[in-house]
Amino acid sequence: METVQHMTIFGTGLLGASIALGLRKAGFSHAITGVGRREVTLDAARQLGCFSDLVLQDDAWDRLADCQLVVLATPLRWFEPLLEKLAAHQHEAMVITDVGSTKRKVCEDAQRLLRMPERFVGSHPMAGGEQHGPAHASAELFRHAPCIITRTDASTASAVALTESLWSTLGMRLSQMTPAEHDQRVATISHLPHAVAVLLVELAVREQSLSVASSGFRDTTRIASGDAQVWTDIFMTNREACMEATDALIAELRDFRDRLDRGDEHAVHDLLHRAKSARDHWAHGG
Amino acid sequence: METVQHMTIFGTGLLGASIALGLRKAGFSHAITGVGRREVTLDAARQLGCFSDLVLQDDAWDRLADCQLVVLATPLRWFEPLLEKLAAHQHEAMVITDVGSTKRKVCEDAQRLLRMPERFVGSHPMAGGEQHGPAHASAELFRHAPCIITRTDASTASAVALTESLWSTLGMRLSQMTPAEHDQRVATISHLPHAVAVLLVELAVREQSLSVASSGFRDTTRIASGDAQVWTDIFMTNREACMEATDALIAELRDFRDRLDRGDEHAVHDLLHRAKSARDHWAHGG
Repeated sequence: METVQHMTIFGTGLLGASIALGLRKAGFSHAITGVGRREVTLDAARQLGCFSDLVLQDDAWDRLADCQLVVLATPLRWFEPLLEKLAAHQHEAMVITDVGSTKRKVCEDAQRLLRMPERFVGSHPMAGGEQHGPAHASAELFRHAPCIITRTDASTASAVALTESLWSTLGMRLSQMTPAEHDQRVATISHLPHAVAVLLVELAVREQSLSVASSGFRDTTRIASGDAQVWTDIFMTNREACMEATDALIAELRDFRDRLDRGDEHAVHDLLHRAKSARDHWAHGG
Repeated sequence: METVQHMTIFGTGLLGASIALGLRKAGFSHAITGVGRREVTLDAARQLGCFSDLVLQDDAWDRLADCQLVVLATPLRWFEPLLEKLAAHQHEAMVITDVGSTKRKVCEDAQRLLRMPERFVGSHPMAGGEQHGPAHASAELFRHAPCIITRTDASTASAVALTESLWSTLGMRLSQMTPAEHDQRVATISHLPHAVAVLLVELAVREQSLSVASSGFRDTTRIASGDAQVWTDIFMTNREACMEATDALIAELRDFRDRLDRGDEHAVHDLLHRAKSARDHWAHGG
């Protein structure tokens, strides 16, 4: 982040505001412009005191001339129109990244729409949870959480280095993948679990069994309380990988059902024991 | 609990010890005998100071003559042999209940094995989580949690009343169901979610994606860290309802996959929105 004198964050909600707060806490003292779509969001972000400037989108474009880093932190659905507009204001010294939960679409859009696609690098900082808005923002939101960097074939080394520097400064654990590999992995460990949580709630409601649900159900379905529009965008921009992951889970459920049907106690125990060991190892930082 | 001068708890692990602690905290001052299978477990339970007596199983039977309430709080697999032995020591003044997570099998076993099946009432206090052993026991474990009472066709009103009194004294929220209805409902809100958590871990391990898993995955799969033997017993004693619940989830997953395949954004959003509303309502005590 040493080369950055001015950065611009599109979206001043939970993620955008937490980036600004985290950078201030890490000692970043240069300009951070926050861009919002409504005055009321800008007012809420203003309370945090971490943005040097807060402007509506129409006023943002002319300010990009001296900007070295742009972060797209809006909902996924705005990425494509934003990239379209950013194309006209791109310059060699500006790197663009994003915080989207899916990466193939935004990376393809960047390749297609930007005049200098080599200055775009995808990012997925895996933090946030169910809460939204700058009121929940925190300088610590990203600390110790994983961040996946998805460079495109075009991305230059310097653009990747600056993007990595942003997330490292916020305390994240970095890894690199292709956009396709990212989307497949998060389909398995994030998008499919979300769909399952939603469907378990659906089944429980249909059977009118929520009244006897307890702490286990509460944990398992917590993510089903995530924002419906945010998650619709995620599923719609990662359809293929989510369908594949769904097929894989259906196959596992069939196999589990067969073990029960056969009354095969050992096969059930093996499965439970293996999963418990793997999860315990992972949960304890293994 | 006014009529109880002496109660016996088979099993002095997390649940059995928490019952004794909770009763003491509620002011129950009469005899509580704890029965264990190994001296080391009895020693651990002795530290808690809530049992008036702790004995090995072989020494338990002769002490049942003046006992008005017996609670089976061992792992599920020991219920059948325990009921078989209890039959010889049953008397009119003694009510028997249990803490098992499945109810059809124990209620059928009680009907079949006991000399006085009318003195048996099934219970499922829904508390506990992943931890085991008397060291994790707490007088507050059961407070505000749901407890499902499953009377059999034979159960007398007085036996049901005493069983309800036990769990009410510990602060639980009571409901009554048939054993079959219980097993079907918990298959949906507890056993199926457990199987799904296990299978999601299995898929993540196979894809080597655990390294990028985050807090959502941690919550969704928390129950997969439950004891493998305890959960094997649960699945094996609730096979039919678990197979039905698995089939229902497979049907839901297929429907979800179809929505993605059609690119039907509205249908995906409807599903997510409905589940979020239902879960939020439930989680906030609705």
